[in-house]
Amino acid sequence: MTGHTVLRDGTAALRREIEDELSSFFAARTSAAQVYGPEFARLWELAAESVLGGKMLRPCLLVTVFEAFLEDRASSSPECDREGLVRLASAIELLHFAFLLHDDVIDGDLMRRHRPNLIGSILEESAASPRSRRTSVEAEQDVRLHWARTGGLLMGDLVLSAVHQTIARERLSHDARLSLLDLLDHSIVDSVAGEHLDVGMSDGAIRIDLRRILTMSQLKTATYSFELPLRAAALLSGQSREAQEQLAEAGRHLGLAFQLQDDLLSVFGQHEDHGKDPFSDLREGKETAIIAYARMTSSWARIEPVFGASDLSEGDGLTARAALSECGAERFVRFLIADEIDACLQLISRPESALPERVGDVLRSLVSSLEHRRA
Amino acid sequence: MTGHTVLRDGTAALRREIEDELSSFFAARTSAAQVYGPEFARLWELAAESVLGGKMLRPCLLVTVFEAFLEDRASSSPECDREGLVRLASAIELLHFAFLLHDDVIDGDLMRRHRPNLIGSILEESAASPRSRRTSVEAEQDVRLHWARTGGLLMGDLVLSAVHQTIARERLSHDARLSLLDLLDHSIVDSVAGEHLDVGMSDGAIRIDLRRILTMSQLKTATYSFELPLRAAALLSGQSREAQEQLAEAGRHLGLAFQLQDDLLSVFGQHEDHGKDPFSDLREGKETAIIAYARMTSSWARIEPVFGASDLSEGDGLTARAALSECGAERFVRFLIADEIDACLQLISRPESALPERVGDVLRSLVSSLEHRRA
Repeated sequence: MTGHTVLRDGTAALRREIEDELSSFFAARTSAAQVYGPEFARLWELAAESVLGGKMLRPCLLVTVFEAFLEDRASSSPECDREGLVRLASAIELLHFAFLLHDDVIDGDLMRRHRPNLIGSILEESAASPRSRRTSVEAEQDVRLHWARTGGLLMGDLVLSAVHQTIARERLSHDARLSLLDLLDHSIVDSVAGEHLDVGMSDGAIRIDLRRILTMSQLKTATYSFELPLRAAALLSGQSREAQEQLAEAGRHLGLAFQLQDDLLSVFGQHEDHGKDPFSDLREGKETAIIAYARMTSSWARIEPVFGASDLSEGDGLTARAALSECGAERFVRFLIADEIDACLQLISRPESALPERVGDVLRSLVSSLEHRRA
Repeated sequence: MTGHTVLRDGTAALRREIEDELSSFFAARTSAAQVYGPEFARLWELAAESVLGGKMLRPCLLVTVFEAFLEDRASSSPECDREGLVRLASAIELLHFAFLLHDDVIDGDLMRRHRPNLIGSILEESAASPRSRRTSVEAEQDVRLHWARTGGLLMGDLVLSAVHQTIARERLSHDARLSLLDLLDHSIVDSVAGEHLDVGMSDGAIRIDLRRILTMSQLKTATYSFELPLRAAALLSGQSREAQEQLAEAGRHLGLAFQLQDDLLSVFGQHEDHGKDPFSDLREGKETAIIAYARMTSSWARIEPVFGASDLSEGDGLTARAALSECGAERFVRFLIADEIDACLQLISRPESALPERVGDVLRSLVSSLEHRRA
């Protein structure tokens, strides 16, 4: 079983609906960009290709949980119609994309999901066109990289703006709009603070410890990937504040489990499944819970010399991976994941739960696919 | 006479009002950031210091023109009260700040207005704290620079989000909100497209010619600095679409004049006045109308060898500056500025103008201070 089954098999049609919405958005933007010249229009085209390869996990989660609420509680008065819901859900995918774009600028990554990311695509196209002004090959490559990264940074700004525009333009009640804007603000601040903490630890500006690593994982991904779509589903389908908060809490547990699993997969997973450079986390010196645990063990002496080495060989990578497993770091992180999943399941199974049965089912099914995730 | 007299002498109190609004915003954000750790809170503090050194040209322009409309047309029904107006005006300063932050990331700049910019400030603080992990001085400096630029990029995202939040939360009629959101979107897309074009020409990805240089100047600065506040003033004070469009057009002329003057000042102006590195444009190989003109003359042979040289000496800088003056580039750009100013003055003096006398007075006074600008 691969991927998020609940959001894949059950919702292939939904996923297409989100993709159609996003395609229309990018088609309109690409067309409007022509007036600024072919390079700017091309930037939009490349961005569209990049977005449409995604799993659409977050928007599908929002729509699925929204619908589960309405199926179970016919008395709910939703804040928006189906069309509005799909627009808002697509905006969450755009938010994810904006974060990826800026993370890639910060990390200097050129690949994502088996293929060049937006920066990598711009770089490829740029390498195909001859230039004259630069003197050395290195200077030429630096300039092309600068051009490609600038595209990633600027597209991130455009997409981030589009997220806000979508929410600000939707016809919601004033209260619902403010609640949704609060949630968006909270999600963005958490993600940015998490990225700041992540880079601070990697760059040696913030001291590394396991507690900070877990906080960072929570902030950087869990909030916007799980808390945001789940809470938005409760909010937009017109549920009580109590139900909103319970779903938000479930989202925080799921989100942390998801992020920790991401860290495990990128070190121990199969390259064919996740499509990332198999040792990129080690090469970048990425501070994860795995590394924080390993640092406390005697095996660290075997890992430290290659950790953060940009010229890491495959042999060194394999050795470090084996050491990370033997020292107990892998087992420890698997335990943390199980712990978060338990907390989530307990939360939705409590007798006093404010969540209806069908919403619980969606979450349980999400947990199950998360446990079997390979990419 | 220094600076924008109309927006300085006449509006010292207004400027303080905007600064107070911005101070409150940053104080609240800094306080809320504590929960994420001292480094994130410090980022907000440094951002506040950076913003509050600004001239507040754009928000003052919005409020001044809004008030000129109301003084002259008692029958206007404004879309917001004074408090809302100040909030929205401050959001335009935040938009300017977000653009500066990301431009500085892209350009690698560390200074602005006689002092370190946000990236420069983070770098200074980072240099004061000892580290251990890095081996060479160069590697250490690269890592510190990465940390500082990440701060600039992430703060840009936070501030850009805050701009949208301010507009989305304001209690406006649905139509006024949509119009304001359209205007914001147009301003952001223009600025980003302008920056993309600017970098594309510098990096050799887009062919350079005078027409593109002028388009770039218009897009990158004129739209959000002049068209946005002027049109927003007409919109928020409840004027006709005709008046809005006329002001937007006046803003485009003023904005281009302003940007061209900026280019002149940074090459020919006094370092003590503008506070930038006196030869940074030459050193960065910044493609301006001055350079585009010079390229077409025989003097270019004297300028080209040092244009874009990161190790440009003061002597070479002075020689290049003299050549840019002698070849007629300086005179040509002064002529373009005078042409834009004439077009603006003609527009507001037309008998069929939709703009009231007092609004015309503000614009004329702005033109006058622009003509005498030194920084």
